[in-house]
Amino acid sequence: MSHLLYLEDFLVGQRFDAGGFSLDAEQIIGFASQYDPQPFHTDEEAAKGSFFGGLAASGWQVACLTMKQMIVAGPKVGGGQIGAGGEIKWPRPTRPGDVLTVSCEVLDVKPSRSKPDRGFVTLRTETKNQNGETVYVFTCQTLVFRRPG
Amino acid sequence: MSHLLYLEDFLVGQRFDAGGFSLDAEQIIGFASQYDPQPFHTDEEAAKGSFFGGLAASGWQVACLTMKQMIVAGPKVGGGQIGAGGEIKWPRPTRPGDVLTVSCEVLDVKPSRSKPDRGFVTLRTETKNQNGETVYVFTCQTLVFRRPG
Repeated sequence: MSHLLYLEDFLVGQRFDAGGFSLDAEQIIGFASQYDPQPFHTDEEAAKGSFFGGLAASGWQVACLTMKQMIVAGPKVGGGQIGAGGEIKWPRPTRPGDVLTVSCEVLDVKPSRSKPDRGFVTLRTETKNQNGETVYVFTCQTLVFRRPG
Repeated sequence: MSHLLYLEDFLVGQRFDAGGFSLDAEQIIGFASQYDPQPFHTDEEAAKGSFFGGLAASGWQVACLTMKQMIVAGPKVGGGQIGAGGEIKWPRPTRPGDVLTVSCEVLDVKPSRSKPDRGFVTLRTETKNQNGETVYVFTCQTLVFRRPG
């Protein structure tokens, strides 16, 4: 509990590593079959003739697994990681066999004007592949509480 | 195949319904345990003392199930629904028992300057609950091809 972070612990420019994950074809097809059933995410043969030129992970799978990393290995925020929304980008596809690394940076810290117990931290979460190429960026406004008491 | 939509079929202001889905506590806890393991998404008792005041679905679950609806019941885009990124918002939580409806609207249609076979369609996808309240908005830039031939 002593390592929980509150609003006063966040500083612009601060960085956190959040570990990483890998994805194989089976995981890509499994996720996409449930949530994003398009041939370039679910069928290796059909994917060859698509825009992606081969099987690519659903961007939502990358988003979800990045979120998981942020929770299990990222900053431990008192009250939890509560995102109100933000800007999402998938600059390039994630492929079977990719090994991904997640990190985040604090872009802004702003106390709430109306509620003195909380504020907003803008976090830029980035996922890179094994070649150092960015596959996912989520710049999110998160609600963070001040340390209680 | 005759119902596939291409760049020339999209018009600003066009709307598409994409059906809907519902979520119960078991589904909320199951998804969050895998991708967003935070007590307000995974534990009904712990959620009562959280910001959400009760169990709430992970925003990513709402995003993923909305995506699925867009594929299975939304506009059938030739070449698939290929999103480059956009702005995401979760204006309010999704709760166990919620019945959600997905629709989308074309905000912009722009031919590519460099590649004559394609263009960009800005789609605003919105998910509302049974009370007509918006729980999710994704304004996404999508890549859409012109009709071949």
